[in-house]
Amino acid sequence: MTLEQRMKEVAEKVDTALDHLLPKPAGPEANLVEAMRYAAMGGGKRLRPLLVLESGKLFGVDEKALLRIACALECVHTYSLVHDDLPCMDDDDLRRGKPATHKQFDEATAVLAGDALLTLAFEILSDSRTHSDPFVRCDLVTRLAAAAGAHGMVGGQMIDLNAEHNQLEITTVTRMQRMKTGALIAFACEAGPVASRAGPAATHALNAYAHDLGLAFQIVDDLLDVEGVERDLGKTPGKDVAAGKATFVAVLGPDRARAQVEMLAGQAVRHLDLFDQKADLLREVVDFVVHRRF
Amino acid sequence: MTLEQRMKEVAEKVDTALDHLLPKPAGPEANLVEAMRYAAMGGGKRLRPLLVLESGKLFGVDEKALLRIACALECVHTYSLVHDDLPCMDDDDLRRGKPATHKQFDEATAVLAGDALLTLAFEILSDSRTHSDPFVRCDLVTRLAAAAGAHGMVGGQMIDLNAEHNQLEITTVTRMQRMKTGALIAFACEAGPVASRAGPAATHALNAYAHDLGLAFQIVDDLLDVEGVERDLGKTPGKDVAAGKATFVAVLGPDRARAQVEMLAGQAVRHLDLFDQKADLLREVVDFVVHRRF
Repeated sequence: MTLEQRMKEVAEKVDTALDHLLPKPAGPEANLVEAMRYAAMGGGKRLRPLLVLESGKLFGVDEKALLRIACALECVHTYSLVHDDLPCMDDDDLRRGKPATHKQFDEATAVLAGDALLTLAFEILSDSRTHSDPFVRCDLVTRLAAAAGAHGMVGGQMIDLNAEHNQLEITTVTRMQRMKTGALIAFACEAGPVASRAGPAATHALNAYAHDLGLAFQIVDDLLDVEGVERDLGKTPGKDVAAGKATFVAVLGPDRARAQVEMLAGQAVRHLDLFDQKADLLREVVDFVVHRRF
Repeated sequence: MTLEQRMKEVAEKVDTALDHLLPKPAGPEANLVEAMRYAAMGGGKRLRPLLVLESGKLFGVDEKALLRIACALECVHTYSLVHDDLPCMDDDDLRRGKPATHKQFDEATAVLAGDALLTLAFEILSDSRTHSDPFVRCDLVTRLAAAAGAHGMVGGQMIDLNAEHNQLEITTVTRMQRMKTGALIAFACEAGPVASRAGPAATHALNAYAHDLGLAFQIVDDLLDVEGVERDLGKTPGKDVAAGKATFVAVLGPDRARAQVEMLAGQAVRHLDLFDQKADLLREVVDFVVHRRF
């Protein structure tokens, strides 16, 4: 199966699983769940779920369990996009090629839908259907909370907002992006070793892979903000530059940024050397991340 | 120890514990943690932590563990207040007698601080310092997520917002309030039986107590919105009426609302009959909730 086919398959499986996890309710709170479904379903590259499923496959973890972990992670990722698009945050009207949640519904509903998606993520992980071993479930909750919280994604978003119109040093930009996007990507790649209680060598290799992949992903994101077109991106390009954001491209310039992506991509692939051809799709992911147009 | 002394003691213990759980960081994200500390520390009646500690004491649960559960719950309660006060939600400038988080900081910081507090709650619960048994920790995560999410607190907030300027029936108002405030109060009272893996009779009794206490608490809240004064409340009174909210007082009228409170209070105390004098403080809590001025 090619990477493209596998990505399509994973996207469909994630949508089916989310459909089951978010049944449409009948009560007066129905619009909340509709907003959660609108935000979480039917869009996105589903890169993080793909990493969860492929990292788990390396260790023979049951795909149904992995799919629940992937959905929990996607709930967190999606909630962060919903809140990020709010007028008081990045103020973006377009997401995944359709109106942002607060445009399709309203701001209050978007705040609450984001809150509920974040909460749902932990309800999914702590459920015995995710893993039979409660130690593993607790470990997943701890890791996802750490990756998403004040010392992970949300902390990175705060630095990002604080940095608008301030020139940051490359070390600060790197730290910010490790927190803002790297932490969730690292969680995705850790899911396999954690769920299978793998040894430190395998865990470390996937962590290092995630680190390099996450940085490469973010630098490409910054390049696309400068060079991409709205039709491909499904969101508004040029916004980071307009907001005076501290991006890799702003700090390094586009040529050095592109060279950095190539260097990180090579490193990421080498971290997979201790796995056999079962890791081939993870190797292809690196190539996809580097050359994507969206 | 009187209830007043015990409440003061619990409030101090919660503040000390939150101070340890939220150490001030040095990085450029420092203002995020400052906003989390501002919102979570040094205010509030700490009714939910008191219920956690007292329900746990009935079953001999270690107070240090209970305090962590209480802090997790208070993180969730506090995040809901921070988001609730946002301009796109209830738009309130005053909370616990001081400027709301988005006034003291800004809206974006308030959104992120709320998100990070919610996330922290699950990080606290899944930690082995909260309970040695991972089944119990998973159970706590599942219950708190269910109480806080789309079918609990956030769902109740959504119904509340949808209901503005619509006359709801008493059954819908009751369901909304059970979700909006009742679910977290029920979690607080379940903490003891869950952490001690108590039998169904004790669990059921505390659940029924929480149900009646929660409703009584909310009706008194509605009465205080009509009759209370800002100096006592630490928030702006009359806002629910002005917003055309579907409160118990709007549906029942103040006299029938007050009679309902008395009825629920009597019921709540009777549910504690199977516990000895160790439950006396929980009995006094009912009296406090009914007669509070803030």
